[in-house]
Amino acid sequence: MSHGPPYADEDDDRPPRPLHGLIDAAPRVVTAGPEMFAAALEQQGVQVDRVRWRPPLTGTDPAALARVVADARGDDANAAAVARALAAGAELVDVLPAREALGLTGGEFCHAGPPIGWERASGPMRGALIGAVLFEGLAGDAETAERMLAGGSGYDLRPCHSLGAVGPMAGVVTASMWGFVLRDPVHGGTAYCTLNEGLGKVLRYGAYGPEVIERLRWMSRVLGPLLQLAVRRRRDRVGPVDIRAIVAQMLHMGDEGHNRNRAGTMMLVRELVPELLDAAGAGELPAGLGLGDVADVVRFANGNDHFFLNLVMPAAKLALDAGRDVPGSSLVVAMARNGTDFGIQVSGTGDAWFTGPARVPDGLYLGGYGPDDANPDIGDSAITETAGLGGFAMAAAPAIVRFVGGSADDALRATRSMYEITLAEHPTYRVPVLGFRGTPTGIDVVAVVRTGVLPSIDTGIAGRDAGTGQVGAGLVHPPEQCFTAALSALAEAAPPFP
Amino acid sequence: MSHGPPYADEDDDRPPRPLHGLIDAAPRVVTAGPEMFAAALEQQGVQVDRVRWRPPLTGTDPAALARVVADARGDDANAAAVARALAAGAELVDVLPAREALGLTGGEFCHAGPPIGWERASGPMRGALIGAVLFEGLAGDAETAERMLAGGSGYDLRPCHSLGAVGPMAGVVTASMWGFVLRDPVHGGTAYCTLNEGLGKVLRYGAYGPEVIERLRWMSRVLGPLLQLAVRRRRDRVGPVDIRAIVAQMLHMGDEGHNRNRAGTMMLVRELVPELLDAAGAGELPAGLGLGDVADVVRFANGNDHFFLNLVMPAAKLALDAGRDVPGSSLVVAMARNGTDFGIQVSGTGDAWFTGPARVPDGLYLGGYGPDDANPDIGDSAITETAGLGGFAMAAAPAIVRFVGGSADDALRATRSMYEITLAEHPTYRVPVLGFRGTPTGIDVVAVVRTGVLPSIDTGIAGRDAGTGQVGAGLVHPPEQCFTAALSALAEAAPPFP
Repeated sequence: MSHGPPYADEDDDRPPRPLHGLIDAAPRVVTAGPEMFAAALEQQGVQVDRVRWRPPLTGTDPAALARVVADARGDDANAAAVARALAAGAELVDVLPAREALGLTGGEFCHAGPPIGWERASGPMRGALIGAVLFEGLAGDAETAERMLAGGSGYDLRPCHSLGAVGPMAGVVTASMWGFVLRDPVHGGTAYCTLNEGLGKVLRYGAYGPEVIERLRWMSRVLGPLLQLAVRRRRDRVGPVDIRAIVAQMLHMGDEGHNRNRAGTMMLVRELVPELLDAAGAGELPAGLGLGDVADVVRFANGNDHFFLNLVMPAAKLALDAGRDVPGSSLVVAMARNGTDFGIQVSGTGDAWFTGPARVPDGLYLGGYGPDDANPDIGDSAITETAGLGGFAMAAAPAIVRFVGGSADDALRATRSMYEITLAEHPTYRVPVLGFRGTPTGIDVVAVVRTGVLPSIDTGIAGRDAGTGQVGAGLVHPPEQCFTAALSALAEAAPPFP
Repeated sequence: MSHGPPYADEDDDRPPRPLHGLIDAAPRVVTAGPEMFAAALEQQGVQVDRVRWRPPLTGTDPAALARVVADARGDDANAAAVARALAAGAELVDVLPAREALGLTGGEFCHAGPPIGWERASGPMRGALIGAVLFEGLAGDAETAERMLAGGSGYDLRPCHSLGAVGPMAGVVTASMWGFVLRDPVHGGTAYCTLNEGLGKVLRYGAYGPEVIERLRWMSRVLGPLLQLAVRRRRDRVGPVDIRAIVAQMLHMGDEGHNRNRAGTMMLVRELVPELLDAAGAGELPAGLGLGDVADVVRFANGNDHFFLNLVMPAAKLALDAGRDVPGSSLVVAMARNGTDFGIQVSGTGDAWFTGPARVPDGLYLGGYGPDDANPDIGDSAITETAGLGGFAMAAAPAIVRFVGGSADDALRATRSMYEITLAEHPTYRVPVLGFRGTPTGIDVVAVVRTGVLPSIDTGIAGRDAGTGQVGAGLVHPPEQCFTAALSALAEAAPPFP
């Protein structure tokens, strides 16, 4: 639907023409840049293919690029890695406290993004850690909690990703928090994500006031156990809820799976409500919980259009974990931010993080907040973009522009531009308005470096001061360094030139 | 997003230019037809407005058209009528048996479309009437029921529309059937629609086997009373469910409100489930009903993506009823089919029906069915298109093409072409992918006749033989006669030329 000239790499559903320029009498011309030249050639009857060309990403080491491109394993490795990611399933098999699911103990805290300590942590990350200390009963007030965290005594901070988990925004997970357990029936992987608290003043955005802690206590006492009951009944009665199937449907219903999860939330709740009703009818509710609690759970989940985000994220992680550790593959298998650093992990380079400074998203602000109140980009939720959802599936959710800014055409353009840096079109996640084209899936470090096109991420914005909560939502890109550093590491791991 | 030349009547967001051709030195040229002429003029520096022009609808009486166009009341009357339709609200205030809501007695049957008797009724209409006789216990078997109906003894058949009701497909309503009661708080109107039975072998598609009657009995015994309880609790506790607000949201979630009602159904159910839970917790379920019945109701509603159609339809009827009876207005206030005739009603001509033979939709068929199995167009559900939804809002629901055929681009084109024959863009019903443009709303008989563009209706297809049920879904147009006949009636009602 572009109004401009037809670029060969965009909006072109024609099969590629065979390249037979050397033996063909008619010249075949590829142009990049000024349109006047291409038009003049066409007037002379010359067939012109316009291509977009940009200089490589700033900071690219040409030698590293040459070496990675020359790595004979590259194409096959990427094909293998992305095929595994595309084939992965995502079934909701249980709801458990992190103590049981991840083996966390009292002093062990997970956080979003690449590794970070208290001293470099941003406001919302510090706020969430303070709230977690209070929630676990390890300190009686925020000042004590902050002093304990700053002192470092007895606290073990580690990335969610290192334990097979993902956490939105600050992504702080502690032993007593409950979360969803997802399983990939194809490759056998498991992923975990806590339950979504809602919007506004919530722990994951760095708020830690009494209402935040009280809500977390209710989630552990009521929400988690009732969801566990429903999920297990459903699993044992007719099989686990197929999260991948719901994600596929939500893309037909105006959600992109990161900042808009309305349809997904409703589809999940409608699977679980009858289980709770049957359990209540059979007298199987957990001790101390009644129909009023069931009603509260239904209202809480239905009242939070982001509830399903915490299922899209582990589903995306399952897919990308399946694509990890393929030697020679430049597939990005994680993008994650801790509020200070943006980090990526790549299939061919194991668990190494390639980081750069996180940027402040460009978007719309709530109430009286503005850009000065915004913290840099934070959260593991960019795993959705890494898996072909979120900002990569914006075309499926044109109404999202009311939340993050821009126009409906911007949403279409955002998705279209991501095809330039991805290895595949998702066979299950499809966008009706693009003629059911699969979402652009599987970011290729080499493509990002060569084109200079950075992944487009559709995200929430946390207040920069601890305790504030959410201040807006918008769009953001990773820093270039993540990709140039990953390229250099891929080059080091590549075999020497023959 | 058109790739062609910019037509003045399409995709043009510019404010209209003042018409000052007579006193303006520069010529202003309007072209219709060959592009070469317009392009040649533009090369000479002449401002050109391209317009699409087609001959008027076949069968148009030029004298009638001249007289209606000359009716000085026309523009103001249409503006007044459509403004009332656009302002109408739609609140779900009760769930009642038709006996109470419409005052029907045992032998009184409502049906879809314009008036019709047994002798001219199509297969699915006959099948639904037979089923209704069985359901009401007026006969013990289908043969007896058919003989009684054919004999005419004691049966009173009348259009749903004549009683302030609408019915999908055959639209048969009898005293013991339950339905939704909607109220327009702005103009005070009331509209009624029965509860949706699901897809496949159901009464409204002309099936009347034992499973159809059994389901109707369950709907009267369990579904209706529990929905009544939920709707009344919700209404009395926080106010009635705002159906117009849900329709506005469903257009952001891939529904068009006629053949796709997935998001709408989920949004309704999520409003009502907590009420049922609270009622159960408070021991207020109707005598003889328990939590298992509540679970059945939730599963039934959530298992039928068309459940919400039966709320979109009365909401649309409320809007159009508000636009009725404005002298001189050529606004279409109903389009409805009985399976034999397609009929329309027009604001300026009271309750008169203008009819023509119903056409067979063009679409996709279920299982082994094909066009030979299809009955002509049937049902009051074209009230959705009359109100700017359904086929008029196809652009909001590109995934619908999997159900009715065509491509996502066809869905966009369908909505765009309806702006040519409508009086307004809906202020509340908006399409994100069209930059949140309001849906084309308020069909103008004069515009249809002048442009030859017929309304595009997105509908289910009933089997032509009584007892079959649904065989497919597709697109259909009304017959031209409806509009040329309405034009002649408007001309007769117009004041004489001055």
